[in-house]
Amino acid sequence: MVKEIFISSTQKRQFIDITDKVLSLVRESGIESGICFLYVPHTTAAITINENADHSVQKDILKELEKIVPLDDNYSHSEGNAAAHIKSTLSGITQYFFIQDGEAKLGTWQGIFFCEFDGPRRRQVLVNVVNEDTTYEAK
Amino acid sequence: MVKEIFISSTQKRQFIDITDKVLSLVRESGIESGICFLYVPHTTAAITINENADHSVQKDILKELEKIVPLDDNYSHSEGNAAAHIKSTLSGITQYFFIQDGEAKLGTWQGIFFCEFDGPRRRQVLVNVVNEDTTYEAK
Amino acid sequence: MVKEIFISSTQKRQFIDITDKVLSLVRESGIESGICFLYVPHTTAAITINENADHSVQKDILKELEKIVPLDDNYSHSEGNAAAHIKSTLSGITQYFFIQDGEAKLGTWQGIFFCEFDGPRRRQVLVNVVNEDTTYEAK
Repeated sequence: MVKEIFISSTQKRQFIDITDKVLSLVRESGIESGICFLYVPHTTAAITINENADHSVQKDILKELEKIVPLDDNYSHSEGNAAAHIKSTLSGITQYFFIQDGEAKLGTWQGIFFCEFDGPRRRQVLVNVVNEDTTYEAK
Repeated sequence: MVKEIFISSTQKRQFIDITDKVLSLVRESGIESGICFLYVPHTTAAITINENADHSVQKDILKELEKIVPLDDNYSHSEGNAAAHIKSTLSGITQYFFIQDGEAKLGTWQGIFFCEFDGPRRRQVLVNVVNEDTTYEAK
Repeated sequence: MVKEIFISSTQKRQFIDITDKVLSLVRESGIESGICFLYVPHTTAAITINENADHSVQKDILKELEKIVPLDDNYSHSEGNAAAHIKSTLSGITQYFFIQDGEAKLGTWQGIFFCEFDGPRRRQVLVNVVNEDTTYEAK
């Protein structure tokens, strides 16, 4: 079943740690073995899994993306957010991770981040926790 | 079951909107609740989900990718399409989205685009619509 | 079930072809129809599917990524590997491909590469081969 996480970004460009919210949905699902699929239904945002220990990593990613895809660069799109669309394609709008023995198999330093590239806005992330056990049992 | 969408690109670099073709396969599957997985079996192309309302967004993404990864940049690969390989890794060759109540859960402005980086060529996208209902029922 | 592939990178930046190891796990699973999901539990590495015929393609991707995201660029993160984190987000830590009639549906020129951006290190890739058959049978 598809669940939703609602996010209110407060800045134009911002990483928002949604790890806890995602892991809550994994626990609620009661699924012991499976895959948690995430999906961003927006075109000027993204989702990434990266280091959550040192916050400066998030700043570095945002700043470097800004350098790679400048806010103004003679874009055709007239809404002023062409760079945000491009960053979305480069960073990606889907992420998944495995669940085993009821635990999310994230790496030690991994956190899940919603990437706002054209905020502030109200946003959402779709979460779909899929059971794997029964597939194998039914075989 | 894996189905195929065939695409004939007409330009060297081109976004081709395959949303309708993908959604047709979703409907044909008859699956009410699940995930539609897409896969590009090529190494000089990609697939992305981004804005389909204003066509200039597609042009901006292609143009900016061209700036980030220039066609000629002293590459070792001798076929003249090294840039296309690099763009493929940056943009990605997989995308998925959820299906709920028989409807694709794409965002309002989202379309699915095949990204040609080394055309014109005959290409394909593999589509796998996976049912989720029975997994839960069987539990 | 989640399996692990262990990798020992020998260079700071390196592509390591893990296609054979992944395909072995697919065969061992005995699954005829399904999806093989891959996941990198690290924040300074990635996984990509790209050309495995000409090795110069791997070098070109690494070199161009180095140009796009320089090793030193006034980053805040103090461990000296900020660039590796950024490359990880740009390249992605997940990849999947389909299995049909017991065969991996990779494209003719596609190989699966672990992307080391901050080696040398001992690394792992998580592999989850999911059966699709029973989902359809159970319907």
